[in-house]
Amino acid sequence: MPDIACLNGTFGPLAEARVSVEDRGFLFGDGVYEVIRTYGGAPFLLEDHLDRLERSLDAVRIRPRWGRPDLEGWIAEALESAGYPDAKLYVQVTRGVAPRDHAFPDVPPTTLLTVTSIRSLPEAVQAAGVAVVTTPDLRWGRCDVKSLNLLPNVLARQAAKEAGAFEALFAAPDGTLAEGAGSNLFAVQDGVVATPALGPRILAGVSRAYVLNLARQAGLKTAERPLTTADLERADEVFLSGTTIEVIGVVRVDDRPVADGRPGPVTRRLAAAFPPGRGREA
Amino acid sequence: MPDIACLNGTFGPLAEARVSVEDRGFLFGDGVYEVIRTYGGAPFLLEDHLDRLERSLDAVRIRPRWGRPDLEGWIAEALESAGYPDAKLYVQVTRGVAPRDHAFPDVPPTTLLTVTSIRSLPEAVQAAGVAVVTTPDLRWGRCDVKSLNLLPNVLARQAAKEAGAFEALFAAPDGTLAEGAGSNLFAVQDGVVATPALGPRILAGVSRAYVLNLARQAGLKTAERPLTTADLERADEVFLSGTTIEVIGVVRVDDRPVADGRPGPVTRRLAAAFPPGRGREA
Repeated sequence: MPDIACLNGTFGPLAEARVSVEDRGFLFGDGVYEVIRTYGGAPFLLEDHLDRLERSLDAVRIRPRWGRPDLEGWIAEALESAGYPDAKLYVQVTRGVAPRDHAFPDVPPTTLLTVTSIRSLPEAVQAAGVAVVTTPDLRWGRCDVKSLNLLPNVLARQAAKEAGAFEALFAAPDGTLAEGAGSNLFAVQDGVVATPALGPRILAGVSRAYVLNLARQAGLKTAERPLTTADLERADEVFLSGTTIEVIGVVRVDDRPVADGRPGPVTRRLAAAFPPGRGREA
Repeated sequence: MPDIACLNGTFGPLAEARVSVEDRGFLFGDGVYEVIRTYGGAPFLLEDHLDRLERSLDAVRIRPRWGRPDLEGWIAEALESAGYPDAKLYVQVTRGVAPRDHAFPDVPPTTLLTVTSIRSLPEAVQAAGVAVVTTPDLRWGRCDVKSLNLLPNVLARQAAKEAGAFEALFAAPDGTLAEGAGSNLFAVQDGVVATPALGPRILAGVSRAYVLNLARQAGLKTAERPLTTADLERADEVFLSGTTIEVIGVVRVDDRPVADGRPGPVTRRLAAAFPPGRGREA
């Protein structure tokens, strides 16, 4: 069961997949992407991810020459070829291969799918929670678009790693927090599950929306409002959501403990409910 | 004389050069680049470009496993293989090929050189000048780094093209202008050649520095200070500088003419002096 790549509809081992050095993904970061998780072989929230991919493509005006059923067919075939029950499916569309010039060329976009295996975070990490650091938000003005311009995210995540932390949170000069380099941010206070409202500095996380729904279904109040570093210091619980990390408790922010330094009951409850199928696999 | 690519020291036709889909340039825009012009076969201001490449690499903490003499050797060989007297030499270094994860991998960076032919802007364009548009500056916080995160530049240049303009100028909400999507901005007023001071929203253009020196050598006063759209409306002359465009007069900004709508004497004088070898080739 090798890692699989599907490049413009052609399947092969990921390790052998190559693109032209003139692909605009390579030259300009001129493309968008999605990361989708499978559980027991089935992609989770696939339609939500493909809806968001279409919104990203529209935002940057990349027009693939396939229809959504084509993409869905490739996805099904790639997942079957790889055969992993728990897989990370990566979908990327770039503006295609053309002599280097900023303005759009009239060429077909490049579509890449890859399938690799994935594991959920270890139980011990889930139980202990993770540390995060805050970092100045140097990202561009359209963080709501899931684009390949990820250098600030790369630098932030590396800074987190070097600080012994799991994730970096992007902070505005006034202390307002947007989201993590690869996750959305939540705080729980007085029983209200809060996360920053959607806007140009927030990715409309598929898991973010799923978690908000889970919380409401569990009878919890939710709020979409600004969160600051001060809010995290006062919070009863802090957690992150994301496709590959699911829900993970945050127990330290820049070396200050959150509440009693352990994942709280709301975090544990939402993590246990995410995804719905987890119980069935065990 | 085909277009040439040198990928990690291996030479071949540009059209056949391929990189792994797991190259971090393709997945994250995780790299930096330079564009260098040759005149009569000789690279122009090569040392300045390679100095800036080293600064960019340091800024994003990419550490190539070659030394500058290796790179210079590849450049010489690539230029000789292509054989174009007037060539565009493109140099790009990405953080290398690794399974997708934001934090830095311990792998060798990917180094790409390409050589393609180039022509100066036609005499008629030089004589008539060009139109520019202003566009909101959505770029990230480190525009002084010549990184591959160029999606905002791509979108701005496309907007310019669709407006019938040559270039887009990035404007802050207060009307302060930074630079073009691929050029630096100058205004001439009362004999003073002004351009925005270096800072996080300005690329330290090699041609920018060269033009400032040319102006001083010609006995003109220069200033590095903020330029606004209002400054351009009042200016006697406006022009752009860049490696491939050299010096080109701007005669319209967002459909308002600059001065009398023709490139002015200072612009023409600097354009004629740029580069020093042009007279010898004719």
